[in-house]
Parts: sequence; structure tokens; C-alpha cells
Amino acid sequence: MNDHSQQFASDNYSGICPEAWAAMAEANHGHDTAYGNDAWTARAADHFRELFETDCEVFFAFNGTAANSLALAALCQSYHSVICAETAHVETDECGAPEFFSNGSKLLLAPTTQGKLTPDAIRQIATKRKDIHFPKPRAVSITQVTEVGTLYSLDELNAVADTCRDLGLRLHMDGSRFSNAVASLGCTPAEVTWKAGVDVLCFGGTKNGMAVGEAILFFNRELAEDFEYRCKQAGQLASKMRFLSAPWVGILENNAWLRYAEHANHCAQLLADLVKDVPGLSLMFPVQANSVFLQLSEPALERLRARGWRFYTFIGSGGARFMCSWDTQESRVRELARDIRDAMQS
Amino acid sequence: MNDHSQQFASDNYSGICPEAWAAMAEANHGHDTAYGNDAWTARAADHFRELFETDCEVFFAFNGTAANSLALAALCQSYHSVICAETAHVETDECGAPEFFSNGSKLLLAPTTQGKLTPDAIRQIATKRKDIHFPKPRAVSITQVTEVGTLYSLDELNAVADTCRDLGLRLHMDGSRFSNAVASLGCTPAEVTWKAGVDVLCFGGTKNGMAVGEAILFFNRELAEDFEYRCKQAGQLASKMRFLSAPWVGILENNAWLRYAEHANHCAQLLADLVKDVPGLSLMFPVQANSVFLQLSEPALERLRARGWRFYTFIGSGGARFMCSWDTQESRVRELARDIRDAMQS
Amino acid sequence: MNDHSQQFASDNYSGICPEAWAAMAEANHGHDTAYGNDAWTARAADHFRELFETDCEVFFAFNGTAANSLALAALCQSYHSVICAETAHVETDECGAPEFFSNGSKLLLAPTTQGKLTPDAIRQIATKRKDIHFPKPRAVSITQVTEVGTLYSLDELNAVADTCRDLGLRLHMDGSRFSNAVASLGCTPAEVTWKAGVDVLCFGGTKNGMAVGEAILFFNRELAEDFEYRCKQAGQLASKMRFLSAPWVGILENNAWLRYAEHANHCAQLLADLVKDVPGLSLMFPVQANSVFLQLSEPALERLRARGWRFYTFIGSGGARFMCSWDTQESRVRELARDIRDAMQS
Amino acid sequence: MNDHSQQFASDNYSGICPEAWAAMAEANHGHDTAYGNDAWTARAADHFRELFETDCEVFFAFNGTAANSLALAALCQSYHSVICAETAHVETDECGAPEFFSNGSKLLLAPTTQGKLTPDAIRQIATKRKDIHFPKPRAVSITQVTEVGTLYSLDELNAVADTCRDLGLRLHMDGSRFSNAVASLGCTPAEVTWKAGVDVLCFGGTKNGMAVGEAILFFNRELAEDFEYRCKQAGQLASKMRFLSAPWVGILENNAWLRYAEHANHCAQLLADLVKDVPGLSLMFPVQANSVFLQLSEPALERLRARGWRFYTFIGSGGARFMCSWDTQESRVRELARDIRDAMQS
Repeated sequence: MNDHSQQFASDNYSGICPEAWAAMAEANHGHDTAYGNDAWTARAADHFRELFETDCEVFFAFNGTAANSLALAALCQSYHSVICAETAHVETDECGAPEFFSNGSKLLLAPTTQGKLTPDAIRQIATKRKDIHFPKPRAVSITQVTEVGTLYSLDELNAVADTCRDLGLRLHMDGSRFSNAVASLGCTPAEVTWKAGVDVLCFGGTKNGMAVGEAILFFNRELAEDFEYRCKQAGQLASKMRFLSAPWVGILENNAWLRYAEHANHCAQLLADLVKDVPGLSLMFPVQANSVFLQLSEPALERLRARGWRFYTFIGSGGARFMCSWDTQESRVRELARDIRDAMQS
Repeated sequence: MNDHSQQFASDNYSGICPEAWAAMAEANHGHDTAYGNDAWTARAADHFRELFETDCEVFFAFNGTAANSLALAALCQSYHSVICAETAHVETDECGAPEFFSNGSKLLLAPTTQGKLTPDAIRQIATKRKDIHFPKPRAVSITQVTEVGTLYSLDELNAVADTCRDLGLRLHMDGSRFSNAVASLGCTPAEVTWKAGVDVLCFGGTKNGMAVGEAILFFNRELAEDFEYRCKQAGQLASKMRFLSAPWVGILENNAWLRYAEHANHCAQLLADLVKDVPGLSLMFPVQANSVFLQLSEPALERLRARGWRFYTFIGSGGARFMCSWDTQESRVRELARDIRDAMQS
Repeated sequence: MNDHSQQFASDNYSGICPEAWAAMAEANHGHDTAYGNDAWTARAADHFRELFETDCEVFFAFNGTAANSLALAALCQSYHSVICAETAHVETDECGAPEFFSNGSKLLLAPTTQGKLTPDAIRQIATKRKDIHFPKPRAVSITQVTEVGTLYSLDELNAVADTCRDLGLRLHMDGSRFSNAVASLGCTPAEVTWKAGVDVLCFGGTKNGMAVGEAILFFNRELAEDFEYRCKQAGQLASKMRFLSAPWVGILENNAWLRYAEHANHCAQLLADLVKDVPGLSLMFPVQANSVFLQLSEPALERLRARGWRFYTFIGSGGARFMCSWDTQESRVRELARDIRDAMQS
Repeated sequence: MNDHSQQFASDNYSGICPEAWAAMAEANHGHDTAYGNDAWTARAADHFRELFETDCEVFFAFNGTAANSLALAALCQSYHSVICAETAHVETDECGAPEFFSNGSKLLLAPTTQGKLTPDAIRQIATKRKDIHFPKPRAVSITQVTEVGTLYSLDELNAVADTCRDLGLRLHMDGSRFSNAVASLGCTPAEVTWKAGVDVLCFGGTKNGMAVGEAILFFNRELAEDFEYRCKQAGQLASKMRFLSAPWVGILENNAWLRYAEHANHCAQLLADLVKDVPGLSLMFPVQANSVFLQLSEPALERLRARGWRFYTFIGSGGARFMCSWDTQESRVRELARDIRDAMQS
């Protein structure tokens, strides 16, 4: 299959960006201490502390499922619960990993319109049951960028965080596309995390140009007690850690993480702009980051597939997700837009 | 620190071998399907099936801790137990991961002289308790190469496997240095695994030239039922799987895995040969693969450290482990041997 | 508080019935073997096998939460899921116990109108997701009598079981009020369980006159492999087991279990009959066993409380559950009916 | 089988004492609030607080396995470890329950001569490993009376507790025979628990005259946060709780718990005194509570069995445990002593 046709399927389909690759190559000289006691890992952690303007605790995990689950397990005991959107990745696409890592914490789902939790929804779920026959709410998990490509504004984020504080709930942010969020919001990483009240952030690297690896940042350092043991026990401590941490140095030290995110966001906006006037087509969600959810028709989707395009359709009949990446080519965006127009007009 | 000084600390300190690196580079072209549905992953799995001359089930995990724990969890329920050597990595260096992944399976430890389980030891532990107040033995875990650098001969292996069959126990092989074992034994991979009676093998890639990644091979295919879900839930499914599987293609397709293992074994043998006549020094264990355990003196160890050498000393006072890798330089082996001789004679 | 006022709060509020008490007294002579190796436990198990006309495996647990969770854990691995009604006790009132005992199995909830799963609902949920990113459906759990007092008819039950067989799903029945179901349906215990296709039944004793204790009956004996270890490890093996098993002998050997259930069902029917013509009142669910769910008004509920009546109101504004027990007095039913009428007409 | 012959097999073989029975009978009047919100449960908790002269948190569980495991799970995370004697019940007879409830906490075993941990043993184990590849020691579990019938003196207990404080370890006491310990030591319950430094005590009721049930007392109240949810989720919350708590009122309010323990201790001492001069016989452990461990000969054991006596022999060849209970008859002690003498002299 021509890989170009897959360019809009998922940012997980993309490869390794040059900066990450170069750092891996540089790290691949001779021997170095294992299990994170190497200079690359220290540098990567320091980069995060500088970027977030705070002395946070930094850990590295292999993938987002593990990062989210380990973080939530640090916030909850097995008899606690986590409030999240019904569209949250932790609920829909991690095969029960949060329940597994926590030994049973329940996810309490809030219906949403744009993938975002609201203070009201959190409060309603958190206060519905007060008896010991139901898991006690202990944390809230939000995804920034959400699974439907929308963003919590700074105001929305602060309102959610205030509600959490008020209810004694800890706040976790699934940031598998955190780069895209920062690029779009124009805020500092600090503003959209700990300054608002986020306790722990899972910062995604894989979707933004790395081969493998996510960072877990505890702004609330108390919650990170013995977390290094938790990672080790859960099979998330890399022996040759430098190959997980060096790519972070590569994309952090020269702001590649942000440029790539801006590029992906730009491509998504471009795609939306190019097709928004196509008759019969509508945007399913506002385009605020690097994905475009389009309501097309089933025959149109079929025609697009016949031309080799790949995309996800988990959002209901006629809906399609087009995802832009760090390496999406504008020329391909324009080709795709043309084909969408053709497909809807055939 | 001069990285050369670390060359004998651990095979986890080594970098990525050229063949693995080249395969990653080749895999890093454009977009490709995520989560293992790509051509590289299929090729890697086929290579394993060809190498082992059987239609085994093949899975990939990020590291050895996870690979071993997932495999054992597939063999046991929480109320079962696993018989292993008291020196087994699953017991001593995985921070309770087997217990965590299985939700409580107990490891039953056999004392050993050379890190190897014997049929008698297995039988004694397996038959000691028959009541429901103690976890029921359900599996045996052996490490090949063992943690002290020794090997199960084909006869020893067959005897262990026969005992397992006789007692209704499943057999797991921790093969984090499986390459070194095959290189040393001169058997085929099939002979030292499923032909003997191994149900599942964790084949280590990290210690033999990969950045990250182990393969889990189920020769007993029934035990692999739904194992892909187990991996996913436990945070061990790579989204950009090709970067875990391509390196396997790289080192399997041209036999690099075996050549590197032979080289590491050769270096260990060379070191042992060069120092065996040093007065006051003794070999703690037979040198059968890529590690050399030397009984020196504490002052000698101190002198070696002062010259920059790094090595592990977890084996008791005056004991030191020197580990050879795919990239160990013979010249460094000779330097180390000289320094050991000097250190013991000062 | 006058305990009479509590008579309709819950069948968990009731005491120990004379037959259970007498058996405990009889069992309380001298010493007897612990952990279930006593004659009472053997007799109780045999009574179940006779009653169900099959050689099922019988285990005893302390309460319904544990019985259900242990049974489901025997049907599922952590990466599997259980389909149940959104009103199921395992979901709403066991504080995440099923997730805890199974180390993460997810409950997939079906909306229902009368607390009952339908073949369509099961099929829809079971076939919605086929990918490894979501827990694989492996079991269905139904409650008989349901949490809203309704019953699966024999036809409905057979249809559910057929669907399970068709989809490769195992079938668990939460029978905390199984006695009331049998009493109401007029079927044999065998007909409403294994003959239909139930794999495992949790038969409730506590709610029908025992102090503590539920029985777990595996009709599919393969699923019970090593289940005695599971019970022990999970803290559900009573040392003085005879005091859990003797009461079963007491209520099974003379059919007290059925007579009491018939009585409770009769009282519920009586209450419903006595109030059904009260203006403004409606039945929320058909009265098919020992509970009556009434839609009253908030002021009416307040008046009832002021007169000392206790009842649960978890069903929404103005809704009240009145639960009859093995020892409910008809005179109190009539008093309650009068007070309900008064309260609605004030 | 004549139950008299079983009188020395285990205190778990004994029945329900009159005081516990009477309280259950009294509690069995009409309806009462479920799940511990009843007057009996409040009274029982208050009795404990009065007896221990402190405002501890009190919970009830069904058996000792669950009580110990829940308590340890409250002290540890899954990647922590618990130091205990190699003879500890949590290690030898709970089928991996501590690992199950904690989702993987490892037990680190200290060899002992009389079943007792020493400060040195604790310190050695606690400080042996400092790296993240092995579970971090977080708690110590001691059994009082130990599994071999010995006692920690007040001095020994204080020394253990001081060591725990010094090392930052929490201290759990498995008190399945705590009554016998208090009766023998002549200390107050407070002195041998929180005044020494015990964080949480599992106080056994079953072995001292109850049908079922243990109390969990948190002297360190912070560790009890949300513990009621933990109990519920783990299937340890009795719906008809009054039948678990009333017996505690029965045996606590008139000091039956202490009188029975004194009686059992007295019987054990009597047995030891009556046989100590039998040629060839020796005491395996000092008799400090209600058990007598005798070193006999295998033929002698066989002769005793032939006369109908039942006893445990898990302590090695020729060793036998004779356990006295709240209801042991002195006349039977004398008969047993005579038969032991005969058996050894045949």
C-alpha cells in the first residue's frame, strides 16, 4: 500500500521525526548506564522542568495506555473512581488498562457534546452517591486535545480544576496530543497544567514524532511518592532508557515539539477550510487542533476508500476522522480535499 | 565518564547494533499501520516461526520484566504458584512484577548451586503442600542463560521438562540471553525450547543489540488465547509497533543475533582464560555464556573501580560480575584482564 | 427504633429464620473439622445437588458481593468484559468488587426498562467492538429476581441463554433472591438454571433467613477448576464452615427456603393489591416477587417516614421500594397499605 | 467421629461459646439496619475503644485471612513489601491472599527460631536492597501469639516497634490469638499494641468462641482512610452485620474473651506439665499460650491417631501440635497426657 494514502489515518501511523532520530543516533555511542541513570534521561527531565517552569517529578513510560493508567493508579486506590468523558481514551481504547493497573478503580462516565467534561457534569457524578456500596470518586481525567479534536480553553480548564479542588478530586490530564493543545491555545505549558490545577500530566511523544515513549509529569510531587517502583513493577522501566529519553531531548531542546504540532494543526485547519463549503458535508466538531471530523455520506466514504485514503470511522454512520501529523504534506491535504469534494459530488 | 569503562557492567549498557539500527531506519519511511498490523511485524513473526521450525504464536513486549510477567500470568491464576530458582530474575529484579501482572501468583523459590532448577527441587516444592491454604503450583520458570551465567544442557533441560509434564506444570523460559544460550549449546532453537517441552519462551532482544523489545513465543498455542488483549491491557502494545519489530527482522534475517551472541560468549571465555591463573582469584561459576563471575578481594575490586571499571557485585563479598556484549572489544577484554591481574597482585 | 417500622426496608434487615437457627444450634456441639471438611458442609452440598437434580460443584461464600465477584472472576480474565443490566447489583452496589476480584474485567452496561437483559441488547453490546483496544465480552450476568423486582420468564431466560451460547458467552446468574424467583415462576430450580443454560448460579441465603452466606453452584463444572483455591485466597473460606453450611441444611431439607420465599412474594402481592387503586399512585414495575416499587409523591414519602416507615428511594423522585421478607407480617402489610393510602390522600 | 477426639486439633474446630451465642440470639429479634449501621455494631466498636483505651478505628471482617490481607493492603502499595517470619500465617496458610488483596505486595521472609522477628532480622531485610528492582519494604507483620505458640514479651515487642519507627516501617499485628497473648502476658491490650507502636491489629474472634468474624483495629487512624470502602469492595462487608458484631459484645462486655483465653492457656500449660517428664519426649517450643508442640516419635504419633486423637503435624517428623480452646476439658487434657505417655512407652 502506498503509505501516502495512510497519512490521515492516525498520528500513530507516522514515523520518527528527524530531531528524535538524530538524538537517538547520538545516544547510540558506546555503553551507558541503564534504567534511567544516564545523562540523557537527566537532560530530558530537566528540559521538562524548564519548559513547565516548575520542579516537577518526571517519569518515562513506553506508551500512553501505561502512562495514563500508572498516573491514575497513583491518584486512586482500587475502591476509588475516576470521572471522565464517555469518549475518553482511558474508557474507550485502553482495554480496561486503568482498571487493571489500579486493581479495580471504576471509570464514571459523563456524556458530553464535544468530548469535554464540564464542572456541572463532574459535580453531578461526584455527588450522586455517598454510600460505601459504590466506588468513591477520587480523581478526574480530562484529555487535552480531546478525542474529538476539541480543546478545553484556559477558562474551561480553570473551571474544571476549581471544581476538582472544591470536591477534593485530583486532576489528571491525558496529553497524548498535549503539544497540539499548547500550539493551538497559545498558552504556556505551565498555564494549561499546574497553574490551572492539574496534578499530573501524561505528555505524549509518540504521536508527535517519537518512536515510542510518553512522559509523566507530577506537578503535585507528593503523589509521585515511590512512583519509580510503580513503573518498574508494571513493566514500564526501560533498561536502555536513553533511547526513550534522548528523543525527548531532541524535540524539546529546539522546540521541534511545538513546531510540529503547529504544522499538524495548520494542516487540519487547511483541510477544514478547503472542504467546508462542499455541499452535504458538515464538520462534526470544531477544528481546534490536528484532527478534522467530517460528516460525509456512506457512498462518499466508499469512494474515498476506493481512491486509497485511509481514515477512522468510529464516530457513527457517515462520519470520518482525518488526522494530521508532524509530517503531513500540504500537497496531500489539498489532494484529499479535492477527493472529498469529488466524492460528495459524484 | 568514559563509556569504555562501562563495557563490562551489563549487556543492558550496550547500544543498538547496526543491523537493528538499519532496520529501524528502513522502517522509518512514511506512514504505516499501527498496533502491529504492519508488514514489519508480520515479517518478524514469520522469521521467528522459521527459526523455531514451528507455527508458534508470536507477541512483542517492551521489556523483559513485562514479557516474563505476561507469560507467567497466562500460565497461572492468582491462586497458583510458580517454581523458580531463588536467583531467578523474576524473583530478584522485577520488583514484584510477576505478582502484579498475575494479581498475586506466588513464586516458590528453590535454592540452587549454579542457578539451575533440578527435577528433584521442582518435585520437592511441587509436592510439599497439597492443601488449599497454599498457592497451587502451576508453572515452572527457568532462565536460559541463568542469572549466574550457566546453562541448562539439553539433557538437563529435557529432565526439567519431563518433570513438569509429569507433575502437570507448565514450563516458561526466561530467555533474556537466549541468543547466548543457543550460541553456546550449539543446538537449534527448536531443540532447546518446544522440542524439549517449553510452553512459552521470552526471547530477549534488548540485551543482544536492540533498543527495546522482547518477543514472547507460545509453542503451546492454547495458552496464548486472547493474549493480545492481555498485552494491550497491560500497556505493552506499541502503537508504532514497526519500530519494535523491524529490529527483529534486522537481527534475525542475517543471523546477526547468533553472531553477536557468539562474539559475546567468546569475549567472556577469553576473559576467563586470561585471568584463571591469577593467584587468589577463582571463578564463581562455570563460564558458559557471556558473563564471568570472579571471586576477587575487596581491595582488588576497589582498585579496579579506581581505574574506572564498572561491574556488578551483587553476589557477595569480593564477587564481581563482568558481562560481555554484542559490541565488546577484545582489546578491552585484554586490558581488563591485565588490570584484574594487577589489582590482585598489588 | 421500633423494628417493625423497618420491616419493609430490606430483606437484609431481617433476622435468622427458625430453621437456620436450629441447624446452627445443632451444629454447635463440640468440635468439628474446619474449612469445610465437616459433615454439615457435605450434607448441604448434597442437598443442592438433589434440589438441582445435577452433580454440580458447590461452594460457600460469606456474602453476595463476594459470591458474584468470585463467580465472574472464574468466567473471565482481566481483559474480558461482562455484559449486564445498568441496574445490576454487580454494577450499582458492589463498590467495584467484580473489577477488584477479576483484576480489571469491565462491566458493559445495557439500558433496560424492567431490569432485564434482552437477547438484542446482549448481541448489540457483544458485537459492537471487535478490536483489542476494548475488553473482549466473555460473560453475561443476569439477576433473577432482578433489582427492580421483576422476573425473567422461562422463555426469556432460554432466549438469553441461547444468545450466550451463540456468541460464546458464559452465563452467570445473580440469585440473591433466587428463592423468590423459583417460588414465583413455579418452575424447578433445574429448569431456571442449567437446563436453560446457566453456567453458574449464586444462590442467596442471607436475604432468605440466614445470618450470613451464599452458595455458588457451578453447573458447568470445568469452570470450577481450582475454585476452592480462589475462594481461600480471596478471604472467603470460613474456618468454622459448619456455621455457614448447617443453616443451608436447615432451610433446604424441609423446603423452608421455598415456603419463606412464597410468603414474602405473597406479602408483596398483597401490598400491591391493597394500594393499586390509591389515586395518584402507580406501580413502577410489575410485582413478580417480594418487592413493590411504588410511584408516590415526595410529600407522601415524607408522611410515611414521619410515621416511622423505612424504605429505599434510589429509584428517582417520589419512587419508593417496599421489600417483603421471610418474616413479614401480614398485619403490618395492611397497616402499611393504609398509611400509604392516607399519605397520598392527605 | 467422636468430637472429643478432635478437641486438640485446632481452636478452629471449636464451636460457639455461650456468651457469643446468647448475643446472637438477642440480636435476632426482628429487623435491624444492615451493613453495620445498627446498634450492636456501634456497641461492639465502643467496647473495643474502651478495652484499648483509645479512640481507634474499628472494622469487622469475616475471617483472619481477609482481616490480615485488608490491613496489610492498607499499609502497602503493590510495589511495597512486608517483612514477616517465615512461619507467619500470612505466608504459609493464606494461599497468597496478602499478594492478592494488595495486587502484588511481596512478603519478605525472615528465618526465626521461635517464630519471632527480631530487630536485627527486620533491619537486615529492610536494608538489604535499596534499588527499585526489588519491592520497597513498607511494613512489618508480627503474629502475637506466634504460629508456634510463643509470645513477644513487652520488651521484645517494643524493640520491634522501635526498629519499625526507625526504618519508617508500619507495624501490623496478626492477633488471631491475641486474647491468649493478653491472658498470658498480663499486660493491658493497650500496652501490647498502640502503646508499643502497633499501627493496626487484627483481633481474632473465631478462635476464641465466635462463629465467624475478626476485628480490625487501626490505632494509626490515618491509615484507615476509606477503609470501609476497601472492606466493601473486597467482599468483607456483612449485610446482616449485627450477627458479626453482637458476639463481640457478648464476649467483650463480661470479659469472657479473657477468661476463655486464660482457660485455654491453662490447659496447654497443664498438658505440658503432665508430659514433660515422659522419656523421649521434648517440647519443641516454650508453652506460652494455648498450644503445645511436642517432639514425639512417628510410631507414637501413629498410636495416638489409632486412639482417635487428632492433631496437626506440619512441624517436621515426629512433631505434633496440640491446641487448646475456650472449651477444652481438663479431663480430656489428662486423658491425652496419659495416652501420650503410653504411646511413647509402648
